[in-house]
Amino acid sequence: MSFVIRHGQLVTPEGVLRGDLYCQNETIAAIGPDLQVPEGTREIEARDFWVLPGGIDAHTHCELPSPAGPASDDFYQAGAAAFAGGTTTIIDFVTPERGESLMKALDRWFEKSQKTCIDYAFHMCIPNFGPETAGEMKRLASDGINSFKIFMAYLATLGIRDDDILRVFDAAGDCGGLVSVHAENGQMVEYLQAHYLSQGKTAPKYHPLSRPPFVEAEAVNRVCALAKAAGQPVYIVHTSTADALKVIARARFEGQLVYSETCPQYLYLNDALYDQPDFEGAAFVMSPPLRPLGHQDALWHGLASGLVQTVATDHCPFMQATQKIRGIDDFTKIPNGGGGIENRMGLLFTGVAQKKLTIERMVDACATAPAKIFGLYPRKGALLVGADADLCLYDPRGETVISAKTHHMNIDRSIYEGVVQQGKVAMTFQRGRCVFDGEIHADRGQGRYLPRK
Amino acid sequence: MSFVIRHGQLVTPEGVLRGDLYCQNETIAAIGPDLQVPEGTREIEARDFWVLPGGIDAHTHCELPSPAGPASDDFYQAGAAAFAGGTTTIIDFVTPERGESLMKALDRWFEKSQKTCIDYAFHMCIPNFGPETAGEMKRLASDGINSFKIFMAYLATLGIRDDDILRVFDAAGDCGGLVSVHAENGQMVEYLQAHYLSQGKTAPKYHPLSRPPFVEAEAVNRVCALAKAAGQPVYIVHTSTADALKVIARARFEGQLVYSETCPQYLYLNDALYDQPDFEGAAFVMSPPLRPLGHQDALWHGLASGLVQTVATDHCPFMQATQKIRGIDDFTKIPNGGGGIENRMGLLFTGVAQKKLTIERMVDACATAPAKIFGLYPRKGALLVGADADLCLYDPRGETVISAKTHHMNIDRSIYEGVVQQGKVAMTFQRGRCVFDGEIHADRGQGRYLPRK
Amino acid sequence: MSFVIRHGQLVTPEGVLRGDLYCQNETIAAIGPDLQVPEGTREIEARDFWVLPGGIDAHTHCELPSPAGPASDDFYQAGAAAFAGGTTTIIDFVTPERGESLMKALDRWFEKSQKTCIDYAFHMCIPNFGPETAGEMKRLASDGINSFKIFMAYLATLGIRDDDILRVFDAAGDCGGLVSVHAENGQMVEYLQAHYLSQGKTAPKYHPLSRPPFVEAEAVNRVCALAKAAGQPVYIVHTSTADALKVIARARFEGQLVYSETCPQYLYLNDALYDQPDFEGAAFVMSPPLRPLGHQDALWHGLASGLVQTVATDHCPFMQATQKIRGIDDFTKIPNGGGGIENRMGLLFTGVAQKKLTIERMVDACATAPAKIFGLYPRKGALLVGADADLCLYDPRGETVISAKTHHMNIDRSIYEGVVQQGKVAMTFQRGRCVFDGEIHADRGQGRYLPRK
Amino acid sequence: MSFVIRHGQLVTPEGVLRGDLYCQNETIAAIGPDLQVPEGTREIEARDFWVLPGGIDAHTHCELPSPAGPASDDFYQAGAAAFAGGTTTIIDFVTPERGESLMKALDRWFEKSQKTCIDYAFHMCIPNFGPETAGEMKRLASDGINSFKIFMAYLATLGIRDDDILRVFDAAGDCGGLVSVHAENGQMVEYLQAHYLSQGKTAPKYHPLSRPPFVEAEAVNRVCALAKAAGQPVYIVHTSTADALKVIARARFEGQLVYSETCPQYLYLNDALYDQPDFEGAAFVMSPPLRPLGHQDALWHGLASGLVQTVATDHCPFMQATQKIRGIDDFTKIPNGGGGIENRMGLLFTGVAQKKLTIERMVDACATAPAKIFGLYPRKGALLVGADADLCLYDPRGETVISAKTHHMNIDRSIYEGVVQQGKVAMTFQRGRCVFDGEIHADRGQGRYLPRK
Repeated sequence: MSFVIRHGQLVTPEGVLRGDLYCQNETIAAIGPDLQVPEGTREIEARDFWVLPGGIDAHTHCELPSPAGPASDDFYQAGAAAFAGGTTTIIDFVTPERGESLMKALDRWFEKSQKTCIDYAFHMCIPNFGPETAGEMKRLASDGINSFKIFMAYLATLGIRDDDILRVFDAAGDCGGLVSVHAENGQMVEYLQAHYLSQGKTAPKYHPLSRPPFVEAEAVNRVCALAKAAGQPVYIVHTSTADALKVIARARFEGQLVYSETCPQYLYLNDALYDQPDFEGAAFVMSPPLRPLGHQDALWHGLASGLVQTVATDHCPFMQATQKIRGIDDFTKIPNGGGGIENRMGLLFTGVAQKKLTIERMVDACATAPAKIFGLYPRKGALLVGADADLCLYDPRGETVISAKTHHMNIDRSIYEGVVQQGKVAMTFQRGRCVFDGEIHADRGQGRYLPRK
Repeated sequence: MSFVIRHGQLVTPEGVLRGDLYCQNETIAAIGPDLQVPEGTREIEARDFWVLPGGIDAHTHCELPSPAGPASDDFYQAGAAAFAGGTTTIIDFVTPERGESLMKALDRWFEKSQKTCIDYAFHMCIPNFGPETAGEMKRLASDGINSFKIFMAYLATLGIRDDDILRVFDAAGDCGGLVSVHAENGQMVEYLQAHYLSQGKTAPKYHPLSRPPFVEAEAVNRVCALAKAAGQPVYIVHTSTADALKVIARARFEGQLVYSETCPQYLYLNDALYDQPDFEGAAFVMSPPLRPLGHQDALWHGLASGLVQTVATDHCPFMQATQKIRGIDDFTKIPNGGGGIENRMGLLFTGVAQKKLTIERMVDACATAPAKIFGLYPRKGALLVGADADLCLYDPRGETVISAKTHHMNIDRSIYEGVVQQGKVAMTFQRGRCVFDGEIHADRGQGRYLPRK
Repeated sequence: MSFVIRHGQLVTPEGVLRGDLYCQNETIAAIGPDLQVPEGTREIEARDFWVLPGGIDAHTHCELPSPAGPASDDFYQAGAAAFAGGTTTIIDFVTPERGESLMKALDRWFEKSQKTCIDYAFHMCIPNFGPETAGEMKRLASDGINSFKIFMAYLATLGIRDDDILRVFDAAGDCGGLVSVHAENGQMVEYLQAHYLSQGKTAPKYHPLSRPPFVEAEAVNRVCALAKAAGQPVYIVHTSTADALKVIARARFEGQLVYSETCPQYLYLNDALYDQPDFEGAAFVMSPPLRPLGHQDALWHGLASGLVQTVATDHCPFMQATQKIRGIDDFTKIPNGGGGIENRMGLLFTGVAQKKLTIERMVDACATAPAKIFGLYPRKGALLVGADADLCLYDPRGETVISAKTHHMNIDRSIYEGVVQQGKVAMTFQRGRCVFDGEIHADRGQGRYLPRK
Repeated sequence: MSFVIRHGQLVTPEGVLRGDLYCQNETIAAIGPDLQVPEGTREIEARDFWVLPGGIDAHTHCELPSPAGPASDDFYQAGAAAFAGGTTTIIDFVTPERGESLMKALDRWFEKSQKTCIDYAFHMCIPNFGPETAGEMKRLASDGINSFKIFMAYLATLGIRDDDILRVFDAAGDCGGLVSVHAENGQMVEYLQAHYLSQGKTAPKYHPLSRPPFVEAEAVNRVCALAKAAGQPVYIVHTSTADALKVIARARFEGQLVYSETCPQYLYLNDALYDQPDFEGAAFVMSPPLRPLGHQDALWHGLASGLVQTVATDHCPFMQATQKIRGIDDFTKIPNGGGGIENRMGLLFTGVAQKKLTIERMVDACATAPAKIFGLYPRKGALLVGADADLCLYDPRGETVISAKTHHMNIDRSIYEGVVQQGKVAMTFQRGRCVFDGEIHADRGQGRYLPRK
């Protein structure tokens, strides 16, 4: 299982170099011009391709439980679709029930993840802060799970209040962990939801109205202040608004370490999509919601300038026909989430083709930065000798129209239906193994768990 | 009881006009040049004075209960000191205990206020939102108490959370009331207090460190967002930081109706005062605390430009010797508050003399704007025919050194000890009656309660 | 020529009072409830009307010379149209040619203004700073012309550079004058005009593209910095963008005295109007241009909150058929300007009816604030005893559709064609004389020149 | 001339890897763990060192002509001092006289640079835009000089106005060049200088007062607007204020490509240094000047977060005794500039040691980013196979006190006199040759000119 990729444009956050890349066993063994390789080594001509580190999707929810049943992609399916999209590592969120032992939830997640084909790590969600929580966080961190997510919305189930948030920051600080945050003010959301429902406004289009941009910006501002009080860094997941970005920019200007993640849906789609006949708007119900025109540009600019560090997907698909439908009479009952794990790299490359960001920035945001922030670097996210041979060969030629008809995710809608992508993933390698070359080659259980440091 | 003030510089928010002002019975009967008045009318030569509407101090806490005993100025004493300072109306905060009926607390406050010499109205604090609260607020509003205060700090006693804040906004909106807010994030304060105490840092100088500027700015930002969600205006009491002002400026820029109040202590004093020997820093323990240098200028600028609408005092004195001393071993036990009702007009005039604001802005901030915002206009806060003859004749000449030795407030320290004030209050009239002319002429019980509309 | 207006809602920036207003000879003689007036006094029932101080339009260009001939409203016509719109004072810009003596230009303007029916004052434009300029400015100021306008655009004719701007600030400071500024970066405008013309883009719709919002924001930012260097206040005429307002807000936050004026066209109209067939877009060619959607709201918010102090019109009409047509092949040759002196008060009142601002703010912005800023107060802009009896009785009932067919301005287009105005001006009085009551009653030469202090 | 560096911590902007680095002839031949090298290869144990790409100082003025004589470091001396400070490449500014042919000035610079020991490239200053300028810029760009600097200050000699700035942007765009800018408003500076001199205020401490922060912020804001009009990127040299950084942050937020450079003096020193006896403040006279406390933190934050991309020195030393003294009676005659080429890497590493930025950010700012922005990458600024073997081995242990007594620059003062630096440069290599190892080993003329792409 060794091969050499010849004449590719090798991309790192630092720059682009044309050269060869030689993989032996599971890792990258050499990088350079005109590499000498053992006779018989498989040669892959990559003159026309960009050679990228395999993508890291730091925000997925495989088979996440919900009242409408689990998210429709299981760990295997999501992994396979990821391969088709050039992504070779995911970080999924272990999501305990409130009051449940974090370790017990982790066990449950490990059970589900056994079947996956993709390398993966876990974040741990903290839905409440009990007497055991700090101890469990410490144990988790030493076991390789050192990122902890809190929710400022979903107060009835997952969300926590400012006092507990401060406790989580303290506990994370104590164990060297990083806190990531779903930043929406839950009380405002509940208030606005009740407001619309009380007026009989039950359609999907009231979903974004019940979570307007200032609901996100307020929460981002607050959690930055909490992080400042605690003297801790913070990672904002799925940043979706110009308003939130402004808050983040100001916090960074004042010297705080605030990371910002966005998702392709917030770069490409807007809230006009909610207002469709036949409940089709439900397919786009996710939180935060898609935003009015204007926010997308701000996110692209933030991504280009480094204000946004990472791009993940918040992959969490639900079937329109059997799951989303639950909210036909009440938008607050529509399971929140959409699928996108397969589309991230292609959509970001399309941004590169449109000069919205450089390919170095793309590689950083989609692979290197998440690897570094979450402790997977340099094993993952890097074109370096010794790193895992996780690779995405991207063919920039031609256009691809995204469609649920052709995607590999287990969901009956594509939120990007009809979006034209520039080029396509030609080949994906995971630890030296070709897992996609137009077709998926993914065995159940081949994915490896990645403890982090 | 009629008199004419001759040749004064009559000041309104609109402008300054030299002229006469004739008062008959309790009201202003005529304004103009060279007024004809009935023979025998008392003539007061005011050629050298500014003639201002009597000050309205919209933020007082007379004999406020605390674990250290009630605030040391009772309703009579505070009123008398107010007269000495050119203030003729106060709006005091009825402060129910959590869970207590608002009406019952009001009764208690009325009992205490019977003895006062100064005209007064009440705001109502809302320390929790129970099933009766909306109904009580409605009744209060129709009875003339239509401003409601919420606390985002002091969570153990008075503070409420975002969900209840939204309920208060709704209830206030329903009854035409205005919500005012003590904006500090209580959870952060508690966290930082615990942090310092756990390190044995118990001195007064840790008080400001446990309530840094961003704790206020966060709360202001949040309550502006909550007000936006509810579609309501909001009044920020005792704004003390440049950071909070920036938030308010942005909210107003985006079209929200946000009022901002500051206090003379935030304009004149800074946090260097906390670091004094012999526990003297305790005299300055109030919340929000005095701020680092720089914030004061921002507040003056805000006042000059109209970003800050009102100046009140948050008058809430506690004796150093017997009350503040409670916190000798723990700064969190120092009763929060200071006295200033007597100093407001003089200190603001000093700002006028120093060209920091115009005298029109001073009159607006100290009298007219609070009257209009809180429904006392045009009876109070206005030099208009038909308005109550509440007047302050200010003599701009000479300097006055402020001192606890000479002030009329019942407190053993002056937070402005040694501050040099430009000029002094020459005479104060309440409803046509001279209540101060160098000496106080104030009868117990002469103050009148002012229901508002 | 005395009369009493009964039961009107009298509006000042401070508040609204119902009462009577008695005018004798040319001034207001008494204000109050149930005024006693000499028998035979004309009684005007105003129960249904708002009684406002007559409007002051601080930005007009009557019969301004241009290569396309003078602006189509002469001093008489503009004044008559102003009366029909509730405005009773104008401040017109004396516009010397570069190098010409300011005094000589003033003589020319006085010649033109002899025929006017409306009271008026003059600003003086400073198109270059020569060795005589400071002296002439001093003389003008002592003669009652103490506001000086500079242009940062139109560099070929009127505009001046930063070094001369600093000299104007100094000279104005020396004589107690106020500098007002047309803030657009002329070099950028010329660059962008050349850019579009070089591509054959000659239609009116390229006018706004050659003067995008950042061209204004840059100039406002620069002139605020220049004013700061010189230690002088500054007045920004016709502020048209959110971007410029942000700059002004920041300067005020930092303690600078910066006044901002906007115009009804920037509140009501947007740049979609430029893209019309048959050269109709030319009617809207003015500088700054109409702006994209979004800026209008920011201006309304600024007006409501006091960030914008005044509303003027920049009245400068040119005939579509004979003057605008000059630019049929080159948008840079279209004479810049539009007419609106007649529409200002009605359009602002419409904003009041739509709750975009209070009527107190309207009166301040349209009358009192310009009077105070430009030294006409309290003679003009005030409902005060002794003030000129300049009044606008506004009837809030019904709707009025604005049209060139019915307006009184000498121009063949209305930029507000079809705009629906709430209510209408019922009567206008100038110095006690009814000059409009549905029909105009205006004699040539009845207008009086107003030296300022 | 081959050697291997063993066990060093190799730093790139992407990350830190411990490993070996093998250099052969002039370039890096291999990087990796436990490299096999030919027998007899020199081995350098670097277990205790950081191995950095040799620094690139993109802002130097070797022997710059001035009325006080040329800057005191010539091309050789500056290069040698650079080596002692871990810097291996400089980009110097060719500075034509106004009206002079750019090519002719370049010839002059080449003459002076022949003797240098350090690899170097040139920027070209554009002190006016004549009919030949665009053509010369095109030729220069094709010859490898594709960065062009404009001055917004020094209007009498080097500075140009907005119209010419736009022409430079256009010409640079046409030839693929990058425009860099000295951003201070020259008119304001002249105005303020004249203001102080007219009051007899001639001491060095009036230098910063005549160039306050808003003078820089204004110019940065303006040139960003000009760049936007022209559709070009822009590089701001020596950014020195928080205010300028805010402007840059906003421009980037809005999608502009704006690069920002700062210098160690703006990170470490403040304006208190100007107020010293015996004209010692003159040593710190440079433009922009050192800034009040507060700005330094903002620059560190900007550097840490990526808002500031590069750190250069603006190296331009003048002797206190013989050159600075020229301004003993007039601060405007003090030659502007200071020396720092030797101190940059050590001072930045000190920031790393103090956790103000990561070592990856240091390497990016001091080497990789300038290489990429100015077209020297990957030959310079990169630890990559094939890159020039320009290296800095930094020993983090111990402290070094900076002093003119020990530095290698030809100047009688150190602006960092007494500053404590963490660690020191252990060895510097240029193209595989050890040029510093405690002592300088630098031959005249060994430096190579670097045309850029």
